[in-house]
Amino acid sequence: MINKNERLASRLPDVAGNGLVDRRALLGRGMLFASAATAGIGSSLAAAAEPLPVDPWSKEPGTVIPPYGVPAKYESKVVRTLTNPNNEARTSNARTPHHLLDGTITPAGLHFVVARAGFPDIDPSKHRLVIHGLVKQPLVFDLEALSRYPKVTRIHFVECGGNSAPLYNKDPIQANVQAIHGLLSCSEWTGVRLSTLLEETGIDPKAKWLLAEGADAPSMNRSIPLAKALDDAMVALYQNGERINPAQGYPMRLLVPGYEGNMNVKWLHRIKLIEEPVMAINETLQYTYRVAGPKIWQFFFPMEVKSFITQPSPGLTLKGPGFYEISGLAYSGNGRIAKVMVSADGGKSWAEAALVEPVLSKALTRFRMPWRWDGQPVVLQSRAWDEAGNVQPTRSEMFAERGEPKVNTPVTAFPMGHMNVITSWAVDHNGEIKHVYG
Amino acid sequence: MINKNERLASRLPDVAGNGLVDRRALLGRGMLFASAATAGIGSSLAAAAEPLPVDPWSKEPGTVIPPYGVPAKYESKVVRTLTNPNNEARTSNARTPHHLLDGTITPAGLHFVVARAGFPDIDPSKHRLVIHGLVKQPLVFDLEALSRYPKVTRIHFVECGGNSAPLYNKDPIQANVQAIHGLLSCSEWTGVRLSTLLEETGIDPKAKWLLAEGADAPSMNRSIPLAKALDDAMVALYQNGERINPAQGYPMRLLVPGYEGNMNVKWLHRIKLIEEPVMAINETLQYTYRVAGPKIWQFFFPMEVKSFITQPSPGLTLKGPGFYEISGLAYSGNGRIAKVMVSADGGKSWAEAALVEPVLSKALTRFRMPWRWDGQPVVLQSRAWDEAGNVQPTRSEMFAERGEPKVNTPVTAFPMGHMNVITSWAVDHNGEIKHVYG
Repeated sequence: MINKNERLASRLPDVAGNGLVDRRALLGRGMLFASAATAGIGSSLAAAAEPLPVDPWSKEPGTVIPPYGVPAKYESKVVRTLTNPNNEARTSNARTPHHLLDGTITPAGLHFVVARAGFPDIDPSKHRLVIHGLVKQPLVFDLEALSRYPKVTRIHFVECGGNSAPLYNKDPIQANVQAIHGLLSCSEWTGVRLSTLLEETGIDPKAKWLLAEGADAPSMNRSIPLAKALDDAMVALYQNGERINPAQGYPMRLLVPGYEGNMNVKWLHRIKLIEEPVMAINETLQYTYRVAGPKIWQFFFPMEVKSFITQPSPGLTLKGPGFYEISGLAYSGNGRIAKVMVSADGGKSWAEAALVEPVLSKALTRFRMPWRWDGQPVVLQSRAWDEAGNVQPTRSEMFAERGEPKVNTPVTAFPMGHMNVITSWAVDHNGEIKHVYG
Repeated sequence: MINKNERLASRLPDVAGNGLVDRRALLGRGMLFASAATAGIGSSLAAAAEPLPVDPWSKEPGTVIPPYGVPAKYESKVVRTLTNPNNEARTSNARTPHHLLDGTITPAGLHFVVARAGFPDIDPSKHRLVIHGLVKQPLVFDLEALSRYPKVTRIHFVECGGNSAPLYNKDPIQANVQAIHGLLSCSEWTGVRLSTLLEETGIDPKAKWLLAEGADAPSMNRSIPLAKALDDAMVALYQNGERINPAQGYPMRLLVPGYEGNMNVKWLHRIKLIEEPVMAINETLQYTYRVAGPKIWQFFFPMEVKSFITQPSPGLTLKGPGFYEISGLAYSGNGRIAKVMVSADGGKSWAEAALVEPVLSKALTRFRMPWRWDGQPVVLQSRAWDEAGNVQPTRSEMFAERGEPKVNTPVTAFPMGHMNVITSWAVDHNGEIKHVYG
């Protein structure tokens, strides 16, 4: 084994407390590692000796290539966590394991789900989308008809309005990033602009909203401003290149980029143009937001700028001092991410992270920050800014503006939505990581 | 049913023969469809009548959300075609069904595969990557060590050097886009730059090439110029956000963006820095390229600029005259796609297609072209240009430069690689589509 105490050389100075290294170190060769030895990567790095060993799997023919590939059997823990595995008559949540993923795309099979009655078994040849109400010509579209319209392809995140709700708890819950932030995913979506279909039906000038309704048993529905529909909404038909996953709305879902997840109505079968919102249960009882004073934010659509660190994070214990990459996800329902800052000293000093290009509007943006851990306790945080000028708040900033949360238990439901404060991970001497309030 | 003979209004003039419509029609509302009726979408579009029917799947609770989702059962035909389904002792090809996909990302389970002995069952905790040869410090990396290095995330296509080889046949084979162009796919790849790891080992100045070798039973290997390794090569660990699919090289593969697929060595376990190429079987017997005269192109790495239409294409019969979107894929191993032109009259006239943004280097780029089919026979073609100034050749241009192909049978093997001529689809009166030579 290489001496694990060998460390990054001094030519790479820290740019913030507790070992954050300038992100420009990531840009090219010859900057990050000063010696030909090791970067302090630690105990797993060994000197090579010849002859090289031959592993058992190299000595025999492999397995047949399947028509549709699945992940390796060793990845059986890389799955969604389920709140309703027996499909009882209540909502099911399935959370994305962001601590075990990297990049920005979420595989369709790991995309988060919130479903009120499982997923319906829709025969795509019989499914129809109706657009009616305040239109000039109500129309029924089948999948064949939709496939003939001009399509758009865009990468967008979808986030449940209640994602990160555990951060409302008075004390930091001891859970991992999947439990706290797992109701968030990102796909490449392809479909027909809703504006294209509304051009076909025509729009009665009285129409100001639309009701979007799913074909699931609870007829999940939401009122959506017509202006959003005409801006960037899409009837999505493909997810990451293939037909939409059944739990994501097969054969079609509404996509209202950047807006609360539940407005992206899955199994879409009806759009009705209307004058006023219908006051559906998911905009009155649920998905409303109590703020300081007597107010309720009833129609509070865009998911605000947020970021969190996925690696390292609770459950991913550090294997001794040395070099690590801090990495995470940032996004905003109001456009592109402009900047992500990372702190390793609980917010006393900050350094700017590198952003994975291309940085796309209303899409997950991966950030990366080189880091030398000296083995001492640290608190890791990230903070994001979006191009609209919004900044991710601290806990105290959020509660000063919106009021203290009223509930002192781990919350999983509303009205505790739209939580986007800075998340803090405390690393102890042993490299173990806990959720704390920074 | 809406009258299927109703057509797009005259305010959208053709920009090329046989009904190609200006791509700017795709940019916004109010341009594509002039009336509130229909766009000539045809028989599938119906007027809505209330009350709306309630489908059977809306009347009962749905199915439990699984930990890892799979495609809908109705999509059972959206699979790779296999040349070796019984895993006999020979190469297996699995082709991507591009005619059934849309967007630019290929799901990992549908990514094309060429494997010499199936896929090895590699235990990731025991797998090692050795970098040795003309280095200052040979090193052994396990997955844990690699995970600590700075990572990069990029979207890149991989294409087999022999993709599209059926186009060398004297007569156009009657097959679909999967059979002709299916050894091509595109993923978001995340991993460690090879230059980062070579900075760790150090490089002996004598080193000019490297040998990359896989852990599959045949020890698939290739010689790669060191300059490419130091430019944009990557040891990829994640594909579309999750660990690499087993048939794609789990737990790690080499990615040499834009270069022949087989150089992107899967199940990567060894990189040896060397002075000269090793003259491996895959650069002498295979993956060499005969050209006019006595020459052999032995090291011919980048996949040249290419495009083809995926929709409509053979097997996807048009359902009567009216509006359609022509869509396809374009890419170049030499950088970004600069332009795609589409013809509906066999190359007599051309119109510029819209490109899905962001257009990324060495990645699949989706192009889209609005089209009104008048029901008469047409020949559809696409032609791509890349930012390096390369243009996709016609058949006669390619053969004038490289010589006529010597083999007059459907070819599936080498030396008939690097085929990138224009593909032509003939649509007949019935909307049926055949492969032709335009």
